[in-house]
Amino acid sequence: MTPRIDALQYANWSEKIFRQMRAGGVDAVHVTITYHENFRETVLNIEAWNRWFERHPDLIFQGFTADDIDLARNTKRTAIFLGSQNPSCIEDDIGLVEVLHRLGLRFMQLTYNNQSLLASGCYEADDTGLTRMGREVVTEMNRVGMVIDMSHSGERSTLDAIAYSTRPIAITHANPASWHPALRNKSDRVLRALAESGGMLGFSVYPHHLRGGGSCSLDEFCRMVAETAEKMGIEHIGIGTDLCQDQPDSVVDWMRAGRWTKARDYGEGSADNPGFPPMPDWFRDNRDFGQIESGLCAVGFSPEEIGAVMGGNWARFFRQSFGAAERPDQEVAQ
Amino acid sequence: MTPRIDALQYANWSEKIFRQMRAGGVDAVHVTITYHENFRETVLNIEAWNRWFERHPDLIFQGFTADDIDLARNTKRTAIFLGSQNPSCIEDDIGLVEVLHRLGLRFMQLTYNNQSLLASGCYEADDTGLTRMGREVVTEMNRVGMVIDMSHSGERSTLDAIAYSTRPIAITHANPASWHPALRNKSDRVLRALAESGGMLGFSVYPHHLRGGGSCSLDEFCRMVAETAEKMGIEHIGIGTDLCQDQPDSVVDWMRAGRWTKARDYGEGSADNPGFPPMPDWFRDNRDFGQIESGLCAVGFSPEEIGAVMGGNWARFFRQSFGAAERPDQEVAQ
Repeated sequence: MTPRIDALQYANWSEKIFRQMRAGGVDAVHVTITYHENFRETVLNIEAWNRWFERHPDLIFQGFTADDIDLARNTKRTAIFLGSQNPSCIEDDIGLVEVLHRLGLRFMQLTYNNQSLLASGCYEADDTGLTRMGREVVTEMNRVGMVIDMSHSGERSTLDAIAYSTRPIAITHANPASWHPALRNKSDRVLRALAESGGMLGFSVYPHHLRGGGSCSLDEFCRMVAETAEKMGIEHIGIGTDLCQDQPDSVVDWMRAGRWTKARDYGEGSADNPGFPPMPDWFRDNRDFGQIESGLCAVGFSPEEIGAVMGGNWARFFRQSFGAAERPDQEVAQ
Repeated sequence: MTPRIDALQYANWSEKIFRQMRAGGVDAVHVTITYHENFRETVLNIEAWNRWFERHPDLIFQGFTADDIDLARNTKRTAIFLGSQNPSCIEDDIGLVEVLHRLGLRFMQLTYNNQSLLASGCYEADDTGLTRMGREVVTEMNRVGMVIDMSHSGERSTLDAIAYSTRPIAITHANPASWHPALRNKSDRVLRALAESGGMLGFSVYPHHLRGGGSCSLDEFCRMVAETAEKMGIEHIGIGTDLCQDQPDSVVDWMRAGRWTKARDYGEGSADNPGFPPMPDWFRDNRDFGQIESGLCAVGFSPEEIGAVMGGNWARFFRQSFGAAERPDQEVAQ
């Protein structure tokens, strides 16, 4: 059987949620550990994760390599892979890429919604593409084996990253803009370039990324997956739910406004709808991955295709992506 | 053949020195990367080491486990294991023990010469023994597999650490005080307790730790090794040269005075002799490990005993010490 993998969650972690991961048969999750936090603050977040790992070794452990997906499956636990949704964690210091990779950071977005030192977020009016430091950091991420994630980046920056990176990149949590024209969803041009370069798209079930929001039906969602499979190829798609379970609304304020503004930023929400939106009834939490599988079956995916979408593709991508770039003359520790 | 291991160096690193390690057939070195640096500054030092590893993969690589000693030997390189001579790097945050272990820190002294948050240095008038935080940090170092090094600590603190630690500890660079009564050398009581608990002593060739300083003869040094072998057992001794090659005297000022005083502290030196002392002529640098071997042979050690002292004992100790404490129900990543 292929593993079940979620390529993006940012929940208010608790034993309850870890037990729901097990109930949902989730073998691996890429979790966001940091947004606007600087390096030291990010390390504090890693320390907090270390305490979760120490407290619940029967439910979760930190994933470092793709082999940990198998270990999770064989020991009935969930491998937790760490990632960042913004490059604040490397500050202005490229040496922190390798340091954070050593600590287990396996994904880093080059931007959240704003301009970063590396590239432009999807809310900026002008998109610089990769900056001077952005190109250097992409090269360094390629070298050590940290995945470039462009989920929140602007169109030009994303195309730049796909072209400049020597290894496939990911958009861990977004949907096609042609299906639902949210600023965070991705153009067909981006999705095609992503697929052609061997990259991966994770489908989001975050309501702002869904046609009709939280009332989007499972059938609509799964038909969108099928259309995207036609467009990108079945091997380039997976799930990245963007599940923000049990978070208070203060957290979405932090995600959107960090420390870059004294005002409030509504991001994908609005003054009328400032908080976390309610989830679709067919995906409440980690226990509902089976619903997505059933939905994919109902719209005509084969069992093999469902396995690929629900985790097989991410497992392959993790295996290609998390190790150091090959150097013929030596072994390189993970 | 047994490996050749040096349990303490703090040189002004250069390609020249790495080539001398190879010329001296040194398979593994524990290098000091930090004294009074805080966490972020220590990470900058790790970043600097990462650049050395990237620039000279044919000469050196970072060691994480005892297997890396064999890898070094088989690929004719030197495995570099990182350590700290003071707990400034963990600040007041016990969570940084695991974080720094993940980054490869394999040794940490609970103190340099002064009182730390954890214990007392050998220059303090009153020795508190392990503090409240000291006991917690020893437990955490035991858990993750970071060696407690008491080379610079006071007598009571050292005996406390030996007794409290559930895993053997090390004194990586010091000699018996009964041979040369320097403040940094260790009493027979400490050396016996160290050996009885399975710990290791690394003999220093730093002139202030030698009878007669830099003019101590190889024969005198090797007779001291033989006497200590009688006292502690041959399996508890190794080499920890404390080689500070090519360092400017400003560095010994930093080691001694850090940021804790505005005055100058002479440590083991004096106003007349404030800088690094000249090394004995039989140990200029890494190329001279063969001289120590010859000296040990001349005072009657067998080839097997020489192998144990020159690296075999440290190799065994590294293997026992660097992994997480065993938990029966799971695998724990290194």
